[in-house]
Amino acid sequence: MKKAAIGIDIGGTSIKLGLVSDQGKILSRSVFMTKDAPGRAKMIKTLVTHITNLQAIARREKYSVRGVGIGAPGPIDVERGFVYFFPNISGWKNTPLKAMLERRLKMPVYVDNDANAMAYGEFRFGAGRGSKNILALTLGTGVGGGIVMNGKLFHGPAYSAAEVGHMVINENGPLCGCGNRGCIETYVGNGHFTREVAERLKKGSKSLLNRWLKDGKKQLTPLLVAQAARCGDQFAYDMWREVGEHLGTFLVGMVNVLNPEKIIIGGGLAQNRGLLFGHVIDCLNRKAFPIAARSVKVVPAELGVDAGLIGSASLAFAN
Amino acid sequence: MKKAAIGIDIGGTSIKLGLVSDQGKILSRSVFMTKDAPGRAKMIKTLVTHITNLQAIARREKYSVRGVGIGAPGPIDVERGFVYFFPNISGWKNTPLKAMLERRLKMPVYVDNDANAMAYGEFRFGAGRGSKNILALTLGTGVGGGIVMNGKLFHGPAYSAAEVGHMVINENGPLCGCGNRGCIETYVGNGHFTREVAERLKKGSKSLLNRWLKDGKKQLTPLLVAQAARCGDQFAYDMWREVGEHLGTFLVGMVNVLNPEKIIIGGGLAQNRGLLFGHVIDCLNRKAFPIAARSVKVVPAELGVDAGLIGSASLAFAN
Repeated sequence: MKKAAIGIDIGGTSIKLGLVSDQGKILSRSVFMTKDAPGRAKMIKTLVTHITNLQAIARREKYSVRGVGIGAPGPIDVERGFVYFFPNISGWKNTPLKAMLERRLKMPVYVDNDANAMAYGEFRFGAGRGSKNILALTLGTGVGGGIVMNGKLFHGPAYSAAEVGHMVINENGPLCGCGNRGCIETYVGNGHFTREVAERLKKGSKSLLNRWLKDGKKQLTPLLVAQAARCGDQFAYDMWREVGEHLGTFLVGMVNVLNPEKIIIGGGLAQNRGLLFGHVIDCLNRKAFPIAARSVKVVPAELGVDAGLIGSASLAFAN
Repeated sequence: MKKAAIGIDIGGTSIKLGLVSDQGKILSRSVFMTKDAPGRAKMIKTLVTHITNLQAIARREKYSVRGVGIGAPGPIDVERGFVYFFPNISGWKNTPLKAMLERRLKMPVYVDNDANAMAYGEFRFGAGRGSKNILALTLGTGVGGGIVMNGKLFHGPAYSAAEVGHMVINENGPLCGCGNRGCIETYVGNGHFTREVAERLKKGSKSLLNRWLKDGKKQLTPLLVAQAARCGDQFAYDMWREVGEHLGTFLVGMVNVLNPEKIIIGGGLAQNRGLLFGHVIDCLNRKAFPIAARSVKVVPAELGVDAGLIGSASLAFAN
């Protein structure tokens, strides 16, 4: 019988579910809005309904379901599948999610944080195939990370490893939401990047962007800055070069300490690959330990918008 | 029969050997000067002589010798026991040290870099006992590090992990010997620290140290700065506070990424524990992820001047 798992990607806006084959292919999808299942009891009930539907589809398609993998925001005790809290969803403090679902589903349930799930998904089905040691980054509002070592997710004894977003690259740098200064997130987080560009334009930097933004029809986004850079705008190009340099500095540290075979970069900012990757790789070659720098490849994530879903499902194939 | 191993600590000045029990006790010692065994062939021959002597002592004392562990400076392919080069000893480029010694000794030989050997020694016989996940630092001229994860040394696929000294904490910081700016080494390396103190004194900072150094009898060292701090000198105290803060910032990153149970700090600078540890711990509590910060202990190394020797021997007990 063919094998599959059910992946659940819990987000502040929506909860996505998918039946995913052991080749990483999404066979069927399902989704509901987070606000439509307020509170723990309602959410668990809704999850079970959706899971049961996907199980029925699996049976029809002759797949045996190995288990349920859940990628969730916030800190989790991975061994017990225990949610400490969700930063953006209320009512989940100290929830034994794994136990609650296993009792209802009679099937193994694996819970991990979303960045780890994505990392494991890329390792198993995406850009990390063939490697045993990877660092996967997601560049979005924040910087998420997951580490696979010797083919296994590295969690650390308190399940709090790979929290890379608040690695400091400049003690005197910009203030971060976390209270520290110069975390990598304050340089490459979407919002921070856009604010920095806006500020420099306001201070009089010459750029195509001034014209594009004048009539208020276009919004300043990393993508717009990338478009300007591709049109030959030096200011926009330099902004991307700076992001690449900051990201590179951070990765020099990661490479020296973890010595990964691959660094996989995904998320919004990484879509502008041509503008970003060259600077990052150049920085690594100039600044990291030669042996470590030579042995690492920097590659784009492959799973795209489905990374969360496939990643969550992949957790069930790990065990 | 009681068990022991032979540890060899290869340094630029001297080569120390020791017969070490499986309880981490040094049963017998031996030493020769590096310059007295120039070149590979001479060194191997001298090593074999000293090892044979220690083997004879082991037999007499009724110890069976499990193997030889070697801690060496510079990059090493740990699996093959292959030395790429020694930074301070010429003639060792691309040497299959393990194979060369095993052929002569008919006994397993394990080679690792000295920082890893020290970390494993502390893990097995020192401040790391009882923990499975540690980060060990040696603060000397440079900053060396070793990582034990799940009870095993973490080497990375290219055996180049845990090179923590060149982690950048300030992109715009002082230039480092490695060519980067603001590596942790440029803040807490012995020489860097002393230079920074000297520079500030020259610029007019008020301190007891000015008086102490005036007649040229005393030399400016981290220890002297510590003495001044203990005499209530604010400038000296502040210099140590700064070092603690820099070290703390670096460790925040390490704790967020590796989530160790213990951070073990050894080496010259760490001897001034009262001045350093409080600031480091305070910084971790303020800046690291709460779960990771709560679960980590910062402790001084226990093996002292014998850390290199006991650490080297401990490599033979790992296998």
